[in-house]
Amino acid sequence: MTRPWEDAGLLSPVRAGTPVEAVVGDRAWLQAMLDAEAALVRAQARLGTVPEGAARAVSNAARAERLDLRALALAARETANPVVGLVQALTRVVAAQDPAAAEYVHRGSTSQDIFDTGAMLVADRALRLIRADLDRTAVALAALAERHRDTLIAGRTLTLHAVPTTFGLKAAGWRALLLDADERLARVQESLPVSLGGAAGTLAGYVEYARLAAGEAPRPSAPGGPEDNPPDPETPRADRSGVQGFDVAGYSERLLAAFAEETGLRGAPLLPWHALRAPVADLGFALAFATGALGKIAVDVQSLARTEVGEVAEPSGGAGRGASSAMPHKRNPVLATLIRSAALQVPTLAGALGQCLVHEDERSGGVWHAEWQLLRECLRLTGGAAHTAVELAEGLEVRAERMRENLALTGSQVVSERIAAVLAPRLGKAAAKELLTWASVTADRDGRPLPDVLAEAPELAGVMDTAEVASLCDPAAYTGAAGPLVDRALKGTP
Amino acid sequence: MTRPWEDAGLLSPVRAGTPVEAVVGDRAWLQAMLDAEAALVRAQARLGTVPEGAARAVSNAARAERLDLRALALAARETANPVVGLVQALTRVVAAQDPAAAEYVHRGSTSQDIFDTGAMLVADRALRLIRADLDRTAVALAALAERHRDTLIAGRTLTLHAVPTTFGLKAAGWRALLLDADERLARVQESLPVSLGGAAGTLAGYVEYARLAAGEAPRPSAPGGPEDNPPDPETPRADRSGVQGFDVAGYSERLLAAFAEETGLRGAPLLPWHALRAPVADLGFALAFATGALGKIAVDVQSLARTEVGEVAEPSGGAGRGASSAMPHKRNPVLATLIRSAALQVPTLAGALGQCLVHEDERSGGVWHAEWQLLRECLRLTGGAAHTAVELAEGLEVRAERMRENLALTGSQVVSERIAAVLAPRLGKAAAKELLTWASVTADRDGRPLPDVLAEAPELAGVMDTAEVASLCDPAAYTGAAGPLVDRALKGTP
Amino acid sequence: MTRPWEDAGLLSPVRAGTPVEAVVGDRAWLQAMLDAEAALVRAQARLGTVPEGAARAVSNAARAERLDLRALALAARETANPVVGLVQALTRVVAAQDPAAAEYVHRGSTSQDIFDTGAMLVADRALRLIRADLDRTAVALAALAERHRDTLIAGRTLTLHAVPTTFGLKAAGWRALLLDADERLARVQESLPVSLGGAAGTLAGYVEYARLAAGEAPRPSAPGGPEDNPPDPETPRADRSGVQGFDVAGYSERLLAAFAEETGLRGAPLLPWHALRAPVADLGFALAFATGALGKIAVDVQSLARTEVGEVAEPSGGAGRGASSAMPHKRNPVLATLIRSAALQVPTLAGALGQCLVHEDERSGGVWHAEWQLLRECLRLTGGAAHTAVELAEGLEVRAERMRENLALTGSQVVSERIAAVLAPRLGKAAAKELLTWASVTADRDGRPLPDVLAEAPELAGVMDTAEVASLCDPAAYTGAAGPLVDRALKGTP
Amino acid sequence: MTRPWEDAGLLSPVRAGTPVEAVVGDRAWLQAMLDAEAALVRAQARLGTVPEGAARAVSNAARAERLDLRALALAARETANPVVGLVQALTRVVAAQDPAAAEYVHRGSTSQDIFDTGAMLVADRALRLIRADLDRTAVALAALAERHRDTLIAGRTLTLHAVPTTFGLKAAGWRALLLDADERLARVQESLPVSLGGAAGTLAGYVEYARLAAGEAPRPSAPGGPEDNPPDPETPRADRSGVQGFDVAGYSERLLAAFAEETGLRGAPLLPWHALRAPVADLGFALAFATGALGKIAVDVQSLARTEVGEVAEPSGGAGRGASSAMPHKRNPVLATLIRSAALQVPTLAGALGQCLVHEDERSGGVWHAEWQLLRECLRLTGGAAHTAVELAEGLEVRAERMRENLALTGSQVVSERIAAVLAPRLGKAAAKELLTWASVTADRDGRPLPDVLAEAPELAGVMDTAEVASLCDPAAYTGAAGPLVDRALKGTP
Repeated sequence: MTRPWEDAGLLSPVRAGTPVEAVVGDRAWLQAMLDAEAALVRAQARLGTVPEGAARAVSNAARAERLDLRALALAARETANPVVGLVQALTRVVAAQDPAAAEYVHRGSTSQDIFDTGAMLVADRALRLIRADLDRTAVALAALAERHRDTLIAGRTLTLHAVPTTFGLKAAGWRALLLDADERLARVQESLPVSLGGAAGTLAGYVEYARLAAGEAPRPSAPGGPEDNPPDPETPRADRSGVQGFDVAGYSERLLAAFAEETGLRGAPLLPWHALRAPVADLGFALAFATGALGKIAVDVQSLARTEVGEVAEPSGGAGRGASSAMPHKRNPVLATLIRSAALQVPTLAGALGQCLVHEDERSGGVWHAEWQLLRECLRLTGGAAHTAVELAEGLEVRAERMRENLALTGSQVVSERIAAVLAPRLGKAAAKELLTWASVTADRDGRPLPDVLAEAPELAGVMDTAEVASLCDPAAYTGAAGPLVDRALKGTP
Repeated sequence: MTRPWEDAGLLSPVRAGTPVEAVVGDRAWLQAMLDAEAALVRAQARLGTVPEGAARAVSNAARAERLDLRALALAARETANPVVGLVQALTRVVAAQDPAAAEYVHRGSTSQDIFDTGAMLVADRALRLIRADLDRTAVALAALAERHRDTLIAGRTLTLHAVPTTFGLKAAGWRALLLDADERLARVQESLPVSLGGAAGTLAGYVEYARLAAGEAPRPSAPGGPEDNPPDPETPRADRSGVQGFDVAGYSERLLAAFAEETGLRGAPLLPWHALRAPVADLGFALAFATGALGKIAVDVQSLARTEVGEVAEPSGGAGRGASSAMPHKRNPVLATLIRSAALQVPTLAGALGQCLVHEDERSGGVWHAEWQLLRECLRLTGGAAHTAVELAEGLEVRAERMRENLALTGSQVVSERIAAVLAPRLGKAAAKELLTWASVTADRDGRPLPDVLAEAPELAGVMDTAEVASLCDPAAYTGAAGPLVDRALKGTP
Repeated sequence: MTRPWEDAGLLSPVRAGTPVEAVVGDRAWLQAMLDAEAALVRAQARLGTVPEGAARAVSNAARAERLDLRALALAARETANPVVGLVQALTRVVAAQDPAAAEYVHRGSTSQDIFDTGAMLVADRALRLIRADLDRTAVALAALAERHRDTLIAGRTLTLHAVPTTFGLKAAGWRALLLDADERLARVQESLPVSLGGAAGTLAGYVEYARLAAGEAPRPSAPGGPEDNPPDPETPRADRSGVQGFDVAGYSERLLAAFAEETGLRGAPLLPWHALRAPVADLGFALAFATGALGKIAVDVQSLARTEVGEVAEPSGGAGRGASSAMPHKRNPVLATLIRSAALQVPTLAGALGQCLVHEDERSGGVWHAEWQLLRECLRLTGGAAHTAVELAEGLEVRAERMRENLALTGSQVVSERIAAVLAPRLGKAAAKELLTWASVTADRDGRPLPDVLAEAPELAGVMDTAEVASLCDPAAYTGAAGPLVDRALKGTP
Repeated sequence: MTRPWEDAGLLSPVRAGTPVEAVVGDRAWLQAMLDAEAALVRAQARLGTVPEGAARAVSNAARAERLDLRALALAARETANPVVGLVQALTRVVAAQDPAAAEYVHRGSTSQDIFDTGAMLVADRALRLIRADLDRTAVALAALAERHRDTLIAGRTLTLHAVPTTFGLKAAGWRALLLDADERLARVQESLPVSLGGAAGTLAGYVEYARLAAGEAPRPSAPGGPEDNPPDPETPRADRSGVQGFDVAGYSERLLAAFAEETGLRGAPLLPWHALRAPVADLGFALAFATGALGKIAVDVQSLARTEVGEVAEPSGGAGRGASSAMPHKRNPVLATLIRSAALQVPTLAGALGQCLVHEDERSGGVWHAEWQLLRECLRLTGGAAHTAVELAEGLEVRAERMRENLALTGSQVVSERIAAVLAPRLGKAAAKELLTWASVTADRDGRPLPDVLAEAPELAGVMDTAEVASLCDPAAYTGAAGPLVDRALKGTP
């Protein structure tokens, strides 16, 4: 059977086969929207406006495998969203079991309530996976930082050796950034809200059905509307809505709370957010942060894995891992490559999601619709990158010996800052820096170690002897607070 | 059968079910890469370095339906691209039919040659569809422009009525922008190249196999390499590559030409473009232009379709077209909505593709990989938007009467510029503009037509009588060159 | 005097002349970096490693007006950042007053510590202004929401009238989004950190100078370095850094705390963040949120200000406000236009800032440098937009009467959802919706009010009489929970 | 005098002091808009609708130094663009010299005509500089490619040594990408158009003034407008516009041509492009391509300049070039750093410019305004990067010896592809690749050269002797078509 439209992950190996795929794919998204429909009718049943049996019937029917996913996707073109078709299809499934219950599907609701609540459920499920993988990665990085607290490595700035640092501090930095990412994701996850607004964010449909269920006849407002009939300032606010006898405020708050409980979502937005897109923007930004953080690790691994540097290697994985189609000797750092491919995409996609805050009217024609695929890609790429990072961090091969060898490449220039500092009180700061600049240039030009050049500098006569120069040149003695910084970073969370 | 990873277009109604889906989906992409493998071996056969029979066997085997798409997607995680697995799978299929032929699969090649050539084939196929749809849309817009050459409508700037224009000029503008888009896409399509570089862009593998096939023993360069053996300036350049007796330059040019012919791609890059990503950046930018142009039409249709404006309506489509899940009366302008949803995404995705020009080394670890999904989404969203635009343009309902009614809303302020122009020679430019400004403010404040206010202005006594004011207030007489501009725009292409 | 390089805001009216300009401009940025230099030496003086007098001398000298801004900008090309030149220039100014003090300028420091700390100071100052303007805007919006709690307006979705809502709920939504923005900015502002890392993030220079000041001779580590001399597990961690006798951990923590106190910045990063760009990414994302939120208000104002809609107008401002160069009658909604122009830019710039998390090594060659202008533009555009929004919100003219008139445009179709809901228990949900759909189509086609069409529907005979239909058609009676939602949103913060 | 708003390039060293600054800064932009005003009145004079003397007077007055730049920037907030204030200020300057001429300033025009024409003039001037710098860079790269046609270097893919290539091919690739960029910029430059539309794109104001100047009284159209009076099909099209006796079509075409000639801009848009933003989108995309191309060079230089690689070095420049504020030995690759900082920004900014194609109505409230600063930054950053690249390319130090040394690092694994190819016909492709894979893994594990490992492989007994293995291991003999590719790329342009 050919399914010419099908995407199976061929162009996105960073996520192909990782757990996030199954929770953000079309089928999962469809199920999440069905979960939203079912939770809504259960919430209405809890408030007594829908029969319990109908809620059970809808919940039983709300299973993605009963619907034709592709047919729903195609139908969505007619209405610009997939919910209209979903409601029809779900209604048919319910009606086949329990015709009376079918009356209660999507009661008082609107496409956006269902779609957005479903999206938040998908995000919640994806964030669970992403955060677990960030945590596993952080644990592995903590172990690397601990083990290599004092493993010397060249600190590199603008591509060149700067001063010594430790691999432990580098790993602790990676971990700290992941913890930052996790904190931002946790905050967003805690605040993921249900969407409950009805046709234009007033909950009018929900209220109307509830009032009908309560047996109350709808009552018109006084002739002329509120403009011509300014509310009596003595009347309590809650009564001014033109609807007496039904506690609109109380009902709508209870419905929101019940819907949230039935879905498990924990955010509590002040207002319906059809056109106030904070939850989606927040998700985009937090996911961009997370892939950016993972991307930092990836580019560092790539720097260190270069043939000439050789200070780390990716875990060897299975037989074909890192293989090339052409070159038998290649063991490509594929994990870092995959992670970086995600990190190059997600911040841009998230920037586009942020633009969707500019959302006109009570619901935009187009801005809302642009969010969907962008959000899913952000979740899926981040999930894939986080999963990939676990393997990278847990298996990263660290070559401390090679790090030491490379540190020696500059003939001690890597500690020129230190020598200048020690000389500063003796020669003046400017003269000391000038001397070391000259010495470094000379050492480079002649291909000699810095101490040898310095030994010939007349300025040093009587100021610093060869032994002191030599003692200053040990990179292990110039790591500053690298060790204590690692200790501090590893204390506490998590 | 559950396929939890599957995307069937549920979140992207702008393209669900449109023709572009079937030419850019995973299966089509896989086929395009297989087409590249087959074309490569046929090209080698044409040059005599591979047996004709092997070329036939590979071509026969290179059918996507014989491979397991999902398995290839999963295998791509191990090697960071899907070609390594594809070569293995294709080799197995060939070997099952003709073991000798299997030796010739992917000979001298590299993953990037196959992937990138496949991507260009996909792009070529998608551009054919996109351009056909742009052309159909342009034809429909030309008819609208012709029909409504003189249909008055308010020109609107910064949301307000400015001066009169014609709907024909608006439609002609839409069409002109689509023609611009088509020209940019045509230029890119003409230049889509095969990728032929071998492992690191030197064609070394292809050359080596060809030389072996030619029976020539590989010859080492002179001891010490070219650095120590500067080429004899008398030796022709083509001979200095350290390889005598085999026409490397000629062979590589002939192979490139044959490969291009076998694929049908027409671009001729100066050099292998593994790390010189002009073709991909060009595609991204041209597609961004195209969706931007379509998006311009969409936002204009949205402006004009607002309930209060009501000057155009979308084609009614089938029974459920534009339906809401909540509101029976809604006929949402879904086509414009879908198009706009694409226009909000593609330029951003294209910006990210443009960033991929910054591609380190002979092949980046991550930058290349980031392009794939971005490029596919650009093609697919543009294809969907273009297909949607055909229906929008062919069926757009234009309400000329409503346009005239709306033009009257400002009580002739829409021609204040004209009155000021006529008065300028009589009162001075500044005084004339000041007078009209005062009159407009007064007219707004008092809710009166502009001519009535002007009739009372003492400055006009003896300068302009009521009849002349009235004659100047006809918006139909103040459309400037709108008509001739439509005529000019409709002449010529296409 | 011509200054051909000068930018004076000509292309960015959204911020020209607003307060944020003076705190983020080049001069202010220079001052902030000088503030960082001065705070650093004061912090070192507090810890006793620099003479108090030197700290005073540097603090006195660190005034932007003493330096040649343009010369520093030009010099920055030589070193890829402006700090190298700044240190030289500042040293000269100090030396002119107090040659001994000049020795203590930038002691142990690095360009990035100064630049990044300066950037955080600039951000802190800008955020103060931005948040004050968001707060003023929110206060004005609260007043609008309160005043118009029950002012009817059409809820609009996908450009069309959906169901009634209130202008108060719309204003409350704008305010809620601004409060969300303010919360995100507050969180970021609280966490803005000093940058203190030294040449490669180990604080080695700071530690070295401090140890020298403490009179301790530098001591080499044991021969062979820590790799060959595994630390005695009995030795406390803090002692293993190869430096005995000086409390590196304690000193570096105290220096960080003193530096933070001297600057007033309150963030406390776990580690030096030269290559861990959380603070910058967080800033970008929060600023994108804020301009996105402001942009939502702007596009809504634009929707409502359209000539045909006319439900709001911008404050009239001074004489020339909103003037056109061509059309005397125009009063363009310039405030919304300016705000929107910022909202279209900032999220994209912030996306690029987010990409800068992918920051290789201990300091990137290029990624760091790309952040600067992006960050400044984000701050400046957001600051300008927020300042513009104050005037928009405080002066917005609301035309309740026009809102009512527009609500009537659909001949009661705007309450079709309600009629369907009331009919659902009587006819069944599907039949009720089908009836209303038919009635709406018919009403549109014939240009008749919905109640008239319904009056002729045989399905309604004995089910709903004309009086009930009429009573259901009052939009004021179908605002759902709009009123209570406004009340809830206005309670509490701020 | 403090100018707190001033930007002097402090945060953008890539462009500070480069020639592009002076042609895109606020002052230059202001001058370009004045040039547009002057060209417009001269064009009108050429057509006889304005006195020659007035055209001279306006041209003489249109000098930026006569206007207060900052005051114009501030005034722009009132009208959302700087042209309204500019027209007033220019009118005052003209009036002071020749009061009668002042009547002719901005006659029939609109802000957007002046702003957009000015922007195109700025772009034209900037492109001239940019293209000259790209050409100089390309010339320098051609020399590098020629000189190093056969200089061996490791081809690197996914950070690892792949197969040998030549530095000449790398340089030829850089150049080819710059030539591509130049071609795209040239195409855009040739097509930069004047903007001539009048208030809403119909040229009505221009036509009206021309007709008045021609002494023709304005004539109303027949009562009821064209809708009620369908044009007689016999009447020529050009006469149907409701305006008889004045050749609207001819005049507007002649005015457009004259205006273009007076400015020197060569593009000829089919229609006024106020809301059809092709020129701006094209500029953005071409500039993104150019900085992307420059960024490719920069990241390659960074890769090759790493301390461990050391194959290239930046030109040493002046004394302080590349200095660090902390480390005396540092010679940072600042040119590549600066270029990369631009390349990280421009594609994103261009993506945002591309979004501005989605431009509602006859002029957008906000979208147009968002373009300005984005476009200027794209021009300025690209100009700075191009200028920086000249110095980088002309002075790049190439270390061929180091390249050879690095090639040896893998113990001949860099030619594993070749050995596999030669073995393929003898062992079968799969067996050959498997053997080389095993040998490479073994060589890595044991730290031995590949030939030594191969020498022990039983599979090779009688198949390939040690001498042949050795001969295959010379990287100089495995550069494929690198040399001929360089030759081909250097032939022809330019």
